[in-house]
Amino acid sequence: MSAQEANGASFSRERLIRFSDCDPAGIVFYPQYFVMFNGLVEDWVDEGLGIGFRRLVIERGVGLPTVRLEADFRAVSQMGDRVVLSLAVERLGSRSITLNARCTGAQDGELRMQMRQVLVSTSLQSHQAVEVPADMRAAIERRFTRRPVPDNA
Amino acid sequence: MSAQEANGASFSRERLIRFSDCDPAGIVFYPQYFVMFNGLVEDWVDEGLGIGFRRLVIERGVGLPTVRLEADFRAVSQMGDRVVLSLAVERLGSRSITLNARCTGAQDGELRMQMRQVLVSTSLQSHQAVEVPADMRAAIERRFTRRPVPDNA
Amino acid sequence: MSAQEANGASFSRERLIRFSDCDPAGIVFYPQYFVMFNGLVEDWVDEGLGIGFRRLVIERGVGLPTVRLEADFRAVSQMGDRVVLSLAVERLGSRSITLNARCTGAQDGELRMQMRQVLVSTSLQSHQAVEVPADMRAAIERRFTRRPVPDNA
Amino acid sequence: MSAQEANGASFSRERLIRFSDCDPAGIVFYPQYFVMFNGLVEDWVDEGLGIGFRRLVIERGVGLPTVRLEADFRAVSQMGDRVVLSLAVERLGSRSITLNARCTGAQDGELRMQMRQVLVSTSLQSHQAVEVPADMRAAIERRFTRRPVPDNA
Repeated sequence: MSAQEANGASFSRERLIRFSDCDPAGIVFYPQYFVMFNGLVEDWVDEGLGIGFRRLVIERGVGLPTVRLEADFRAVSQMGDRVVLSLAVERLGSRSITLNARCTGAQDGELRMQMRQVLVSTSLQSHQAVEVPADMRAAIERRFTRRPVPDNA
Repeated sequence: MSAQEANGASFSRERLIRFSDCDPAGIVFYPQYFVMFNGLVEDWVDEGLGIGFRRLVIERGVGLPTVRLEADFRAVSQMGDRVVLSLAVERLGSRSITLNARCTGAQDGELRMQMRQVLVSTSLQSHQAVEVPADMRAAIERRFTRRPVPDNA
Repeated sequence: MSAQEANGASFSRERLIRFSDCDPAGIVFYPQYFVMFNGLVEDWVDEGLGIGFRRLVIERGVGLPTVRLEADFRAVSQMGDRVVLSLAVERLGSRSITLNARCTGAQDGELRMQMRQVLVSTSLQSHQAVEVPADMRAAIERRFTRRPVPDNA
Repeated sequence: MSAQEANGASFSRERLIRFSDCDPAGIVFYPQYFVMFNGLVEDWVDEGLGIGFRRLVIERGVGLPTVRLEADFRAVSQMGDRVVLSLAVERLGSRSITLNARCTGAQDGELRMQMRQVLVSTSLQSHQAVEVPADMRAAIERRFTRRPVPDNA
């Protein structure tokens, strides 16, 4: 495992589970996990990559829609729980970014939910796939890509 | 393909894509697909199985949380589109139900999104898995299970 | 009361209260009423006025944001309830439409929630108020405005 | 104006307007303001009153549903805006709390939206109004009630 992988290969934020996240069973309504992770991706683009999510979407007209996801829900989250949402880049393609995301309890470290999500870079005009913007690619490669340890490491 | 498979193996409802389903890109915000399919499962339990979703949840204390899903987003849906949401039972386990669900354009028949979703039957008191209720199992077997054609068919 | 008032002065749609509308208290999460009424306004523009909500917003670039509302919540709505959402036009201004909206139980007729809502017609480019479109004004006047009975009626 | 009024008569939190808060017009979908303020009330009960919102709702079975609100939407909020949400207590009744809440731009101080909201203290079992819990009343009186300056001040 390289140094890059240990330092900065994941991005995380803590979040409170709110009344409005929960359903009549008193637990997180599962689509709400995807809303939370959408917010995490925004924070990652803003703070982890330093790209500016609003600028990316509004001024540069680039969207990051989800084209594929696989999610496992392992344990329930309840109103008032503090959770940690984290993401790591599994693969950076020419037009796509594959993320591994997890939600764990902030106190107990228990895995609540995890997912693999493929985002594609699109033009918001045409909704067609476009190259991942160069500055975004560079920031991901610099900070969030797992690199093989060089032979002489 | 057996006669059972052709008649009644899937359950579907048409739905309008609303302003509130869409994001600043003018297309369905992807977590909203899961909210729509959650509504489809309610209608299926009510009308397809004749079980009564409210009674199941409130009076009988049975929940149907999602434990696993795999989703592919193939084409965008826009405000004002009419879509068909449909589901079929892939597998009925002792405590779980695996669904295949699809969203297609009502006019063009284009596949917008599809998913495989594993629901587990739980006690809403303990959040632990319990047997799929007998009446629900019977209704699924009767109407939504694909059975092999008998040898003498 | 004039004939116009009795025939067609209100527009209504029935709706099922869904699991996803409800909060951990098992009742409609109050912001969700506004999501429901937003859907009712869409249906009214489409079906009550015959204008085409999608065309209005996307092709014609006209928005109908809310600038003022007053709401009273009288009784709770629970998952599985069928409710009737209805609206009537209280006042049609040059750039605004004031609606009176109500949610009542479909079975018991009980008033659950009512509101007075002022919508303003805006340009989606500038977010500035514009005249209510002429075809929309004409349709509202024809079908949803309470007119005094003429003296010779 | 008394010292109590100047120190601590309002409670506020900053929040980022997210992609998921916005509609196809690119601005906050107005019901989402109420979701945001619901979160502010949670934070106020937790941090402003020191009562514990989760404990209040789950363990003590007390709800705080909205029975009345009046809201004015003055200016739009867009994705990426930072806003300040604040609340002050206008009136503390035996079973109700009337709040004045505001959303302003964090940078420009511009008023985006304001509302007057009446919450009622209820039993989550019966959905009937109950006395505002004594510890909550005491905390509100101590920190969030505007008191007349005594004559001898």
